Amino acid sequence: MGRPPMEKRSRVPEPTISRLATYFRCLAELQDQQVAVVSSEEIAFRAGVKASQFRKDLSYFGEFGVQGLGYPVPHLLRRVSSILQLDQAHKVALLGAGNLGTALAGFPGFSRWGFQILWIFDASPAKVGQSINQIVVESSSALPRPLGADLGILAVPTQAAREAAQLLVDSGVTALLNFTGAHLHLGPQVTVRNVDLTHELAVLAYHATQLQKAVDP
Amino acid sequence: MGRPPMEKRSRVPEPTISRLATYFRCLAELQDQQVAVVSSEEIAFRAGVKASQFRKDLSYFGEFGVQGLGYPVPHLLRRVSSILQLDQAHKVALLGAGNLGTALAGFPGFSRWGFQILWIFDASPAKVGQSINQIVVESSSALPRPLGADLGILAVPTQAAREAAQLLVDSGVTALLNFTGAHLHLGPQVTVRNVDLTHELAVLAYHATQLQKAVDP
Repeated sequence: MGRPPMEKRSRVPEPTISRLATYFRCLAELQDQQVAVVSSEEIAFRAGVKASQFRKDLSYFGEFGVQGLGYPVPHLLRRVSSILQLDQAHKVALLGAGNLGTALAGFPGFSRWGFQILWIFDASPAKVGQSINQIVVESSSALPRPLGADLGILAVPTQAAREAAQLLVDSGVTALLNFTGAHLHLGPQVTVRNVDLTHELAVLAYHATQLQKAVDP
Repeated sequence: MGRPPMEKRSRVPEPTISRLATYFRCLAELQDQQVAVVSSEEIAFRAGVKASQFRKDLSYFGEFGVQGLGYPVPHLLRRVSSILQLDQAHKVALLGAGNLGTALAGFPGFSRWGFQILWIFDASPAKVGQSINQIVVESSSALPRPLGADLGILAVPTQAAREAAQLLVDSGVTALLNFTGAHLHLGPQVTVRNVDLTHELAVLAYHATQLQKAVDP
Protein backbone atom coordinates (compact mmCIF):
# COMPACT_ATOMS: atom_id res chain seq x y z
CA MET A 1 0.00 0.00 0.00
CA GLY A 2 3.13 2.22 0.03
CA ARG A 3 3.35 5.30 -2.16
CA PRO A 4 5.67 4.67 -5.12
CA PRO A 5 8.74 6.93 -5.29
CA MET A 6 8.56 10.30 -7.09
CA GLU A 7 10.46 9.03 -10.14
CA LYS A 8 7.70 6.57 -10.82
CA ARG A 9 4.86 8.97 -10.02
CA SER A 10 6.15 11.64 -12.37
CA ARG A 11 5.76 9.24 -15.30
CA VAL A 12 1.98 9.00 -14.81
CA PRO A 13 0.34 9.74 -18.18
CA GLU A 14 -1.71 12.93 -18.45
CA PRO A 15 -4.98 11.11 -19.39
CA THR A 16 -4.65 9.04 -16.19
CA ILE A 17 -4.56 12.21 -14.09
CA SER A 18 -7.60 13.52 -15.91
CA ARG A 19 -9.48 10.24 -15.34
CA LEU A 20 -8.48 10.22 -11.66
CA ALA A 21 -10.30 13.55 -11.32
CA THR A 22 -13.37 11.88 -12.85
CA TYR A 23 -13.08 8.91 -10.45
CA PHE A 24 -12.83 11.39 -7.61
CA ARG A 25 -16.12 13.04 -8.65
CA CYS A 26 -17.85 9.62 -8.95
CA LEU A 27 -16.51 8.53 -5.55
CA ALA A 28 -17.69 11.77 -3.95
CA GLU A 29 -21.17 11.08 -5.41
CA LEU A 30 -21.10 7.52 -4.03
CA GLN A 31 -19.98 8.84 -0.63
CA ASP A 32 -22.87 11.34 -0.68
CA GLN A 33 -25.20 8.42 -1.41
CA GLN A 34 -23.65 6.56 1.56
CA VAL A 35 -22.43 3.65 -0.59
CA ALA A 36 -19.79 1.76 1.44
CA VAL A 37 -18.17 -0.51 -1.18
CA VAL A 38 -17.99 -0.23 -4.97
CA SER A 39 -16.86 -2.63 -7.71
CA SER A 40 -14.43 -1.53 -10.41
CA GLU A 41 -17.21 -2.20 -12.95
CA GLU A 42 -19.62 0.18 -11.20
CA ILE A 43 -17.17 3.04 -10.81
CA ALA A 44 -15.88 2.54 -14.37
CA PHE A 45 -19.47 2.68 -15.68
CA ARG A 46 -20.10 5.92 -13.83
CA ALA A 47 -16.85 7.38 -15.17
CA GLY A 48 -17.56 6.22 -18.73
CA VAL A 49 -14.45 4.01 -19.03
CA LYS A 50 -13.73 0.25 -19.06
CA ALA A 51 -13.12 -1.49 -15.72
CA SER A 52 -9.67 -2.58 -16.96
CA GLN A 53 -8.81 1.07 -17.64
CA PHE A 54 -9.87 2.07 -14.14
CA ARG A 55 -7.72 -0.68 -12.57
CA LYS A 56 -4.74 0.26 -14.76
CA ASP A 57 -5.04 3.93 -13.79
CA LEU A 58 -5.05 3.05 -10.09
CA SER A 59 -2.09 0.68 -10.50
CA TYR A 60 0.27 3.66 -10.96
CA PHE A 61 -0.30 4.53 -7.32
CA GLY A 62 -0.08 1.14 -5.61
CA GLU A 63 -2.68 -1.38 -4.45
CA PHE A 64 -6.21 -0.38 -3.54
CA GLY A 65 -9.16 -2.80 -3.63
CA VAL A 66 -9.46 -6.32 -2.28
CA GLN A 67 -9.77 -8.99 -4.98
CA GLY A 68 -13.43 -10.00 -5.34
CA LEU A 69 -14.62 -7.61 -2.63
CA GLY A 70 -14.42 -4.26 -4.43
CA TYR A 71 -13.20 -0.95 -3.10
CA PRO A 72 -14.18 0.65 0.22
CA VAL A 73 -15.55 4.04 -0.93
CA PRO A 74 -14.25 6.25 1.94
CA HIS A 75 -10.73 4.76 1.72
CA LEU A 76 -10.47 5.03 -2.07
CA LEU A 77 -11.89 8.56 -1.98
CA ARG A 78 -9.21 9.59 0.54
CA ARG A 79 -6.43 8.00 -1.54
CA VAL A 80 -7.53 9.57 -4.85
CA SER A 81 -8.06 12.86 -3.07
CA SER A 82 -4.52 12.65 -1.70
CA ILE A 83 -3.00 11.78 -5.11
CA LEU A 84 -4.71 14.78 -6.69
CA GLN A 85 -3.80 16.98 -3.68
CA LEU A 86 -7.48 17.68 -3.13
CA ASP A 87 -7.02 16.99 0.58
CA GLN A 88 -5.35 20.36 0.99
CA ALA A 89 -6.47 23.92 0.32
CA HIS A 90 -5.43 25.63 -2.92
CA LYS A 91 -5.15 29.39 -3.18
CA VAL A 92 -6.61 30.62 -6.45
CA ALA A 93 -6.18 33.99 -8.19
CA LEU A 94 -8.87 34.99 -10.69
CA LEU A 95 -8.11 37.44 -13.50
CA GLY A 96 -11.20 39.01 -15.01
CA ALA A 97 -14.24 40.32 -13.11
CA GLY A 98 -16.79 40.25 -15.97
CA ASN A 99 -19.83 37.97 -16.10
CA LEU A 100 -17.71 34.84 -16.43
CA GLY A 101 -15.33 35.82 -13.63
CA THR A 102 -18.28 36.68 -11.39
CA ALA A 103 -19.90 33.32 -12.15
CA LEU A 104 -16.65 31.51 -11.34
CA ALA A 105 -16.12 33.44 -8.11
CA GLY A 106 -19.50 32.21 -6.89
CA PHE A 107 -19.19 28.63 -8.13
CA PRO A 108 -19.95 26.36 -5.13
CA GLY A 109 -18.01 23.36 -6.52
CA PHE A 110 -14.68 25.15 -6.08
CA SER A 111 -14.83 25.71 -2.35
CA ARG A 112 -16.19 22.21 -1.71
CA TRP A 113 -13.00 20.76 -3.19
CA GLY A 114 -10.65 23.12 -1.41
CA PHE A 115 -10.17 25.70 -4.15
CA GLN A 116 -10.36 29.12 -2.52
CA ILE A 117 -10.54 32.15 -4.76
CA LEU A 118 -8.63 34.66 -2.62
CA TRP A 119 -7.85 37.36 -5.20
CA ILE A 120 -9.75 38.88 -8.11
CA PHE A 121 -7.98 41.21 -10.51
CA ASP A 122 -9.32 43.27 -13.40
CA ALA A 123 -7.76 45.79 -15.79
CA SER A 124 -10.80 48.06 -15.82
CA PRO A 125 -10.87 50.98 -13.31
CA ALA A 126 -14.68 50.61 -13.27
CA LYS A 127 -14.33 47.10 -11.78
CA VAL A 128 -11.53 47.82 -9.30
CA GLY A 129 -12.86 48.36 -5.78
CA GLN A 130 -16.11 46.46 -6.38
CA SER A 131 -16.85 43.43 -4.19
CA ILE A 132 -17.59 39.99 -5.62
CA ASN A 133 -18.37 37.27 -3.08
CA GLN A 134 -16.76 39.41 -0.37
CA ILE A 135 -13.53 39.80 -2.33
CA VAL A 136 -12.53 43.31 -3.39
CA VAL A 137 -11.45 43.48 -7.04
CA GLU A 138 -7.88 44.80 -7.37
CA SER A 139 -6.16 46.35 -10.36
CA SER A 140 -4.25 43.77 -12.44
CA SER A 141 -1.55 46.39 -13.08
CA ALA A 142 -0.73 46.18 -9.36
CA LEU A 143 -0.47 42.38 -9.18
CA PRO A 144 2.08 41.60 -6.43
CA ARG A 145 5.20 39.50 -7.08
CA PRO A 146 5.17 36.96 -5.59
CA LEU A 147 1.43 36.69 -5.08
CA GLY A 148 1.35 33.36 -3.22
CA ALA A 149 -1.37 31.77 -5.37
CA ASP A 150 -1.16 28.08 -6.33
CA LEU A 151 -3.47 28.34 -9.32
CA GLY A 152 -4.67 31.06 -11.66
CA ILE A 153 -7.92 31.37 -13.58
CA LEU A 154 -7.94 33.45 -16.75
CA ALA A 155 -11.39 34.87 -17.49
CA VAL A 156 -10.44 37.97 -19.47
CA PRO A 157 -11.29 38.80 -23.12
CA THR A 158 -9.23 36.71 -25.58
CA GLN A 159 -7.27 39.73 -26.88
CA ALA A 160 -6.10 40.48 -23.31
CA ALA A 161 -5.19 36.85 -22.56
CA ARG A 162 -1.46 36.74 -23.27
CA GLU A 163 -0.66 39.83 -21.23
CA ALA A 164 -2.87 38.72 -18.33
CA ALA A 165 -1.37 35.21 -18.36
CA GLN A 166 2.13 36.68 -18.23
CA LEU A 167 1.16 38.80 -15.20
CA LEU A 168 0.05 35.64 -13.39
CA VAL A 169 3.21 33.74 -14.37
CA ASP A 170 5.39 36.67 -13.25
CA SER A 171 3.59 36.55 -9.90
CA GLY A 172 4.69 32.91 -9.48
CA VAL A 173 1.60 30.99 -10.65
CA THR A 174 2.57 27.70 -12.34
CA ALA A 175 -0.87 26.28 -13.17
CA LEU A 176 -3.47 28.14 -15.19
CA LEU A 177 -7.07 27.45 -16.14
CA ASN A 178 -7.62 29.31 -19.41
CA PHE A 179 -11.16 30.32 -20.39
CA THR A 180 -10.04 32.52 -23.28
CA GLY A 181 -9.68 31.35 -26.87
CA ALA A 182 -5.96 32.24 -26.84
CA HIS A 183 -3.34 29.57 -27.40
CA LEU A 184 -0.88 30.17 -24.56
CA HIS A 185 2.77 29.07 -24.65
CA LEU A 186 4.14 29.93 -21.23
CA GLY A 187 7.17 27.67 -21.07
CA PRO A 188 7.77 24.21 -19.59
CA GLN A 189 7.29 25.38 -15.98
CA VAL A 190 3.66 26.38 -16.47
CA THR A 191 0.76 23.95 -16.93
CA VAL A 192 -2.24 25.32 -18.82
CA ARG A 193 -5.66 23.65 -19.04
CA ASN A 194 -7.92 25.17 -21.68
CA VAL A 195 -11.67 25.36 -21.21
CA ASP A 196 -12.62 25.92 -24.81
CA LEU A 197 -16.39 26.34 -24.86
CA THR A 198 -16.64 26.65 -28.63
CA HIS A 199 -14.66 23.40 -28.89
CA GLU A 200 -17.27 21.60 -26.80
CA LEU A 201 -20.10 23.02 -28.92
CA ALA A 202 -18.28 21.97 -32.10
CA VAL A 203 -18.12 18.36 -30.89
CA LEU A 204 -21.82 18.52 -29.99
CA ALA A 205 -22.71 19.99 -33.39
CA TYR A 206 -21.10 16.97 -35.04
CA HIS A 207 -23.10 14.55 -32.90
CA ALA A 208 -26.38 16.44 -33.25
CA THR A 209 -26.07 16.30 -37.02
CA GLN A 210 -25.08 12.61 -37.03
CA LEU A 211 -28.19 11.83 -34.94
CA GLN A 212 -30.41 13.82 -37.30
CA LYS A 213 -28.92 11.93 -40.26
CA ALA A 214 -29.53 8.60 -38.51
CA VAL A 215 -33.20 9.49 -37.99
CA ASP A 216 -33.73 11.11 -41.39
CA PRO A 217 -30.86 10.06 -43.71
CA MET B 1 -11.16 13.63 -52.22
CA GLY B 2 -14.74 12.25 -52.09
CA ARG B 3 -16.62 12.10 -48.80
CA PRO B 4 -16.60 8.53 -47.42
CA PRO B 5 -20.04 6.94 -47.01
CA MET B 6 -21.99 7.41 -43.75
CA GLU B 7 -21.30 3.87 -42.52
CA LYS B 8 -17.59 4.66 -42.45
CA ARG B 9 -17.99 8.15 -40.98
CA SER B 10 -20.12 6.96 -38.08
CA ARG B 11 -17.23 4.79 -36.86
CA VAL B 12 -15.01 7.82 -36.29
CA PRO B 13 -13.68 7.61 -32.70
CA GLU B 14 -14.83 10.24 -30.23
CA PRO B 15 -11.28 11.55 -29.49
CA THR B 16 -10.81 12.17 -33.23
CA ILE B 17 -13.89 14.40 -33.32
CA SER B 18 -12.60 16.28 -30.29
CA ARG B 19 -9.17 16.75 -31.89
CA LEU B 20 -10.78 17.90 -35.15
CA ALA B 21 -12.37 20.73 -33.19
CA THR B 22 -8.88 21.64 -31.92
CA TYR B 23 -7.46 21.53 -35.47
CA PHE B 24 -10.31 23.79 -36.55
CA ARG B 25 -9.35 26.37 -33.91
CA CYS B 26 -5.66 26.22 -34.94
CA LEU B 27 -6.57 26.55 -38.62
CA ALA B 28 -8.83 29.54 -37.90
CA GLU B 29 -5.87 31.17 -36.08
CA LEU B 30 -3.56 30.47 -39.06
CA GLN B 31 -6.19 31.89 -41.42
CA ASP B 32 -6.41 35.03 -39.26
CA GLN B 33 -2.62 35.30 -39.50
CA GLN B 34 -2.93 34.96 -43.31
CA VAL B 35 -0.82 31.80 -43.42
CA ALA B 36 -1.47 30.10 -46.80
CA VAL B 37 0.06 26.65 -46.34
CA VAL B 38 0.82 24.64 -43.20
CA SER B 39 2.77 21.42 -42.56
CA SER B 40 1.30 18.57 -40.52
CA GLU B 41 4.15 19.11 -38.02
CA GLU B 42 3.23 22.77 -37.50
CA ILE B 43 -0.48 22.20 -37.04
CA ALA B 44 0.16 19.18 -34.80
CA PHE B 45 2.49 21.27 -32.63
CA ARG B 46 -0.16 23.98 -32.27
CA ALA B 47 -2.77 21.35 -31.40
CA GLY B 48 -0.46 19.59 -28.93
CA VAL B 49 -0.47 16.22 -30.72
CA LYS B 50 1.97 14.21 -32.84
CA ALA B 51 2.01 14.81 -36.61
CA SER B 52 1.20 11.13 -37.17
CA GLN B 53 -1.90 11.51 -34.98
CA PHE B 54 -3.03 14.55 -36.97
CA ARG B 55 -2.63 12.66 -40.28
CA LYS B 56 -4.45 9.61 -38.91
CA ASP B 57 -7.37 11.75 -37.69
CA LEU B 58 -7.74 13.35 -41.12
CA SER B 59 -7.51 9.96 -42.88
CA TYR B 60 -11.03 9.07 -41.64
CA PHE B 61 -12.39 11.73 -43.95
CA GLY B 62 -10.39 11.17 -47.16
CA GLU B 63 -7.30 12.78 -48.65
CA PHE B 64 -6.29 16.35 -47.83
CA GLY B 65 -2.71 17.63 -48.17
CA VAL B 66 -0.23 17.20 -51.02
CA GLN B 67 2.77 14.99 -50.13
CA GLY B 68 5.75 17.20 -49.29
CA LEU B 69 3.85 20.44 -49.87
CA GLY B 70 1.71 20.66 -46.75
CA TYR B 71 -1.93 21.68 -46.46
CA PRO B 72 -3.52 24.76 -48.01
CA VAL B 73 -5.01 26.49 -44.95
CA PRO B 74 -8.25 27.86 -46.49
CA HIS B 75 -9.10 24.50 -48.10
CA LEU B 76 -8.38 22.42 -44.98
CA LEU B 77 -10.28 24.90 -42.81
CA ARG B 78 -13.34 24.56 -45.07
CA ARG B 79 -13.14 20.76 -45.04
CA VAL B 80 -12.76 20.47 -41.24
CA SER B 81 -15.49 23.06 -40.83
CA SER B 82 -17.77 20.99 -43.05
CA ILE B 83 -17.00 17.72 -41.19
CA LEU B 84 -17.87 19.37 -37.87
CA GLN B 85 -20.93 21.08 -39.41
CA LEU B 86 -19.47 24.43 -38.43
CA ASP B 87 -20.29 25.75 -41.90
CA GLN B 88 -23.95 25.98 -40.96
CA ALA B 89 -25.85 27.85 -38.27
CA HIS B 90 -26.82 26.03 -35.06
CA LYS B 91 -29.76 27.13 -32.99
CA VAL B 92 -28.93 27.01 -29.30
CA ALA B 93 -31.24 27.10 -26.28
CA LEU B 94 -29.73 28.22 -22.97
CA LEU B 95 -31.21 27.14 -19.65
CA GLY B 96 -30.17 29.32 -16.73
CA ALA B 97 -29.93 33.12 -16.72
CA GLY B 98 -27.56 33.54 -13.75
CA ASN B 99 -24.01 34.90 -13.98
CA LEU B 100 -22.77 31.90 -15.93
CA GLY B 101 -25.73 31.95 -18.36
CA THR B 102 -25.29 35.69 -18.86
CA ALA B 103 -21.57 35.22 -19.55
CA LEU B 104 -22.33 32.46 -22.07
CA ALA B 105 -25.05 34.50 -23.81
CA GLY B 106 -22.49 37.23 -24.46
CA PHE B 107 -19.59 34.95 -25.41
CA PRO B 108 -18.28 36.22 -28.79
CA GLY B 109 -16.73 32.85 -29.79
CA PHE B 110 -20.15 31.24 -30.14
CA SER B 111 -21.56 33.53 -32.82
CA ARG B 112 -18.31 33.52 -34.78
CA TRP B 113 -18.61 29.77 -35.24
CA GLY B 114 -22.30 29.82 -36.12
CA PHE B 115 -23.76 29.03 -32.69
CA GLN B 116 -26.71 31.35 -32.18
CA ILE B 117 -28.28 31.48 -28.75
CA LEU B 118 -31.92 32.11 -29.70
CA TRP B 119 -33.69 31.24 -26.46
CA ILE B 120 -32.89 31.75 -22.78
CA PHE B 121 -35.02 30.05 -20.13
CA ASP B 122 -34.96 30.37 -16.36
CA ALA B 123 -37.09 28.93 -13.56
CA SER B 124 -37.04 32.11 -11.48
CA PRO B 125 -39.94 34.60 -11.96
CA ALA B 126 -37.44 37.37 -11.11
CA LYS B 127 -35.41 36.53 -14.23
CA VAL B 128 -38.31 35.96 -16.65
CA GLY B 129 -38.96 39.02 -18.81
CA GLN B 130 -35.43 40.43 -18.41
CA SER B 131 -33.33 40.96 -21.54
CA ILE B 132 -29.88 39.44 -21.97
CA ASN B 133 -28.08 40.30 -25.20
CA GLN B 134 -31.44 41.33 -26.72
CA ILE B 135 -33.04 37.99 -25.85
CA VAL B 136 -35.99 38.06 -23.47
CA VAL B 137 -35.70 35.39 -20.76
CA GLU B 138 -38.69 33.02 -20.81
CA SER B 139 -40.02 30.74 -18.10
CA SER B 140 -38.56 27.22 -18.30
CA SER B 141 -41.94 25.85 -17.18
CA ALA B 142 -43.33 27.09 -20.53
CA LEU B 143 -40.66 25.49 -22.71
CA PRO B 144 -42.36 24.68 -26.06
CA ARG B 145 -42.39 21.14 -27.54
CA PRO B 146 -40.85 20.97 -30.05
CA LEU B 147 -38.63 23.97 -29.52
CA GLY B 148 -36.58 23.72 -32.73
CA ALA B 149 -33.16 24.04 -31.06
CA ASP B 150 -30.21 21.94 -32.27
CA LEU B 151 -28.20 22.26 -29.07
CA GLY B 152 -28.90 23.00 -25.43
CA ILE B 153 -26.69 24.59 -22.81
CA LEU B 154 -27.35 23.75 -19.17
CA ALA B 155 -26.19 26.56 -16.86
CA VAL B 156 -28.54 26.01 -13.91
CA PRO B 157 -27.63 25.09 -10.30
CA THR B 158 -26.55 21.43 -10.01
CA GLN B 159 -29.59 20.44 -7.96
CA ALA B 160 -31.87 21.69 -10.76
CA ALA B 161 -29.86 19.98 -13.51
CA ARG B 162 -31.76 16.73 -14.04
CA GLU B 163 -35.16 18.39 -14.32
CA ALA B 164 -33.86 21.15 -16.60
CA ALA B 165 -32.06 18.63 -18.83
CA GLN B 166 -35.26 16.60 -19.16
CA LEU B 167 -37.16 19.75 -20.22
CA LEU B 168 -34.63 20.30 -23.00
CA VAL B 169 -34.75 16.65 -24.10
CA ASP B 170 -38.57 16.70 -24.09
CA SER B 171 -38.39 19.76 -26.34
CA GLY B 172 -36.39 17.74 -28.89
CA VAL B 173 -32.79 18.74 -28.07
CA THR B 174 -30.38 15.83 -28.70
CA ALA B 175 -27.05 17.47 -27.79
CA LEU B 176 -26.37 19.11 -24.47
CA LEU B 177 -23.47 21.09 -23.02
CA ASN B 178 -23.63 20.52 -19.27
CA PHE B 179 -22.05 23.11 -16.96
CA THR B 180 -23.54 21.61 -13.81
CA GLY B 181 -21.84 19.02 -11.64
CA ALA B 182 -24.69 16.56 -12.23
CA HIS B 183 -24.03 13.22 -13.89
CA LEU B 184 -26.73 13.07 -16.59
CA HIS B 185 -28.00 9.81 -18.12
CA LEU B 186 -30.43 10.89 -20.81
CA GLY B 187 -30.51 7.78 -23.00
CA PRO B 188 -28.67 6.76 -26.18
CA GLN B 189 -30.33 9.45 -28.33
CA VAL B 190 -28.82 12.35 -26.38
CA THR B 191 -25.15 13.37 -26.44
CA VAL B 192 -23.90 15.19 -23.36
CA ARG B 193 -20.58 17.04 -23.08
CA ASN B 194 -19.65 17.97 -19.53
CA VAL B 195 -17.73 21.13 -18.74
CA ASP B 196 -16.55 20.17 -15.29
CA LEU B 197 -14.64 23.15 -13.94
CA THR B 198 -13.66 21.46 -10.69
CA HIS B 199 -12.27 18.56 -12.73
CA GLU B 200 -9.97 20.95 -14.60
CA LEU B 201 -8.80 22.55 -11.35
CA ALA B 202 -8.15 19.10 -9.86
CA VAL B 203 -5.83 18.22 -12.75
CA LEU B 204 -4.06 21.56 -12.34
CA ALA B 205 -3.70 21.06 -8.60
CA TYR B 206 -1.84 17.79 -9.28
CA HIS B 207 0.56 19.50 -11.70
CA ALA B 208 1.11 22.56 -9.50
CA THR B 209 2.11 20.29 -6.62
CA GLN B 210 4.36 18.12 -8.82
CA LEU B 211 6.16 21.26 -10.03
CA GLN B 212 6.61 22.52 -6.48
CA LYS B 213 8.04 19.11 -5.48
CA ALA B 214 10.43 19.20 -8.44
CA VAL B 215 11.72 22.61 -7.35
CA ASP B 216 11.76 21.90 -3.62
CA PRO B 217 11.61 18.11 -3.05
